[in-house]
Amino acid sequence: MRAEVCDESGETREAAVAGEYPLTVYVDKRETVTLMTLGQMPEALAIGWLRNQRLAREVGEIESVCVDWEVHSAAVAMRESARGRELPEKRTVTTGCGQGTMFGDFMEELDGVSFSRGAKLSPDALFDLLAQVRARDTVYKEAGAVHACLLAAHEGARADILVFVEDVGRHNAADSIAGWMWLNEVCGGGKIFYTTGRLTSEMVIKCAQMGIPYLVSRSGCTRMGLEIARQTGVTMIGRALNKRYIVFSGGEYLQKTPPRE
Amino acid sequence: MRAEVCDESGETREAAVAGEYPLTVYVDKRETVTLMTLGQMPEALAIGWLRNQRLAREVGEIESVCVDWEVHSAAVAMRESARGRELPEKRTVTTGCGQGTMFGDFMEELDGVSFSRGAKLSPDALFDLLAQVRARDTVYKEAGAVHACLLAAHEGARADILVFVEDVGRHNAADSIAGWMWLNEVCGGGKIFYTTGRLTSEMVIKCAQMGIPYLVSRSGCTRMGLEIARQTGVTMIGRALNKRYIVFSGGEYLQKTPPRE
Repeated sequence: MRAEVCDESGETREAAVAGEYPLTVYVDKRETVTLMTLGQMPEALAIGWLRNQRLAREVGEIESVCVDWEVHSAAVAMRESARGRELPEKRTVTTGCGQGTMFGDFMEELDGVSFSRGAKLSPDALFDLLAQVRARDTVYKEAGAVHACLLAAHEGARADILVFVEDVGRHNAADSIAGWMWLNEVCGGGKIFYTTGRLTSEMVIKCAQMGIPYLVSRSGCTRMGLEIARQTGVTMIGRALNKRYIVFSGGEYLQKTPPRE
Repeated sequence: MRAEVCDESGETREAAVAGEYPLTVYVDKRETVTLMTLGQMPEALAIGWLRNQRLAREVGEIESVCVDWEVHSAAVAMRESARGRELPEKRTVTTGCGQGTMFGDFMEELDGVSFSRGAKLSPDALFDLLAQVRARDTVYKEAGAVHACLLAAHEGARADILVFVEDVGRHNAADSIAGWMWLNEVCGGGKIFYTTGRLTSEMVIKCAQMGIPYLVSRSGCTRMGLEIARQTGVTMIGRALNKRYIVFSGGEYLQKTPPRE
């Protein structure tokens, strides 16, 4: 949308404002969560949210998702086998923006995580990815106030963006990627997960849960994000912009760069 | 904390990493939420979280808060009058980073919001505030990956920062301000609430709930953030940096600036 604003000189002009819409997810007609979203990929968002909250264990458990923007709802029907699964009692725990929602004991399942790493990531492929991100037309460039996430493959010095999504919350963007992966039967093996958002605990957990070995962010990381990356073996790269980055963990899975001259 | 990292040249060095620690809030011995926090003001954070979730209606309802970092807990005891108050059934979850947690019908109470505005805010006082923020030594400058919030008073061309807090989540920072205000019996009337984070719906709601008439951010706003600001009458200023800003709503409560020469 566009809004009439005025700037520091008192002049009135129009500014782009990022959309933000409520989307209430119903699971078998039970209201489960309301997400505030830009709305680029609502079906993938609903499915990815269920996935990352571990309310669905595989995509086959979900029979259908029906989004109706008239009433801002995403109605999810679960298959017989998954019906009646209770939301875990233990309600909250998490980070997100410090206060996301993740049901259950999120750390529990991480011990079982193992990655299909594929070829080592080359710094040139990473630079290629960052250049592609920079070149994109984005809501962020026009209106700000949103985060982006993407999933990419890499081969040699090239990166290939498979899906790119922006949302008002970095976790909605991440969940949309998770949902897209299920919908398109794309696994995390060998892939790169890029986010403009910070590498807090919950973001690293989601990356590990999706089985994605490379996690890249334009921003920095927190202590718990770093600990979880090291514990799970995620290769975590922060402050990635232009031709620069910092490797926080798992540097052995990056191709060696020539020493600085 | 400091961590050993390597950069794009392959060189190993130390980098500062923002702390992130779980803090589980128990209300009358019942586990209520776990917040991931930098931990600068844990008591204020716990109290502010209860306040902004409307689980406490006034500070007098809270008997004590006891933070124990050994077990990462904040044990809140409520007074007799407020005991046994049920968490609302409807786990309305809202924005935050797109997925915060707010109990109950958050919009319901906003109709009753009214501000004690005090004097009109002068652009010079705003610039003074931004200069003070810029000059501060912050975790952000050293480690990144955190957001800051502050509460300030203003008079003439001067701003006076009353409390400044950084946290890994912008909502934790905002809640800490809310808790600090209750603990120090400071009301929102006439004040400025500044955040480095985006002006999404939930942030504007919190500002309005705290009765703070001026909301300023370094970032932009979303559609719902803007709608709620206009509905509640919050003067909302975004993209505030150095000598620039954009007034999204309530510009009539800013002192007029001379026309651009």
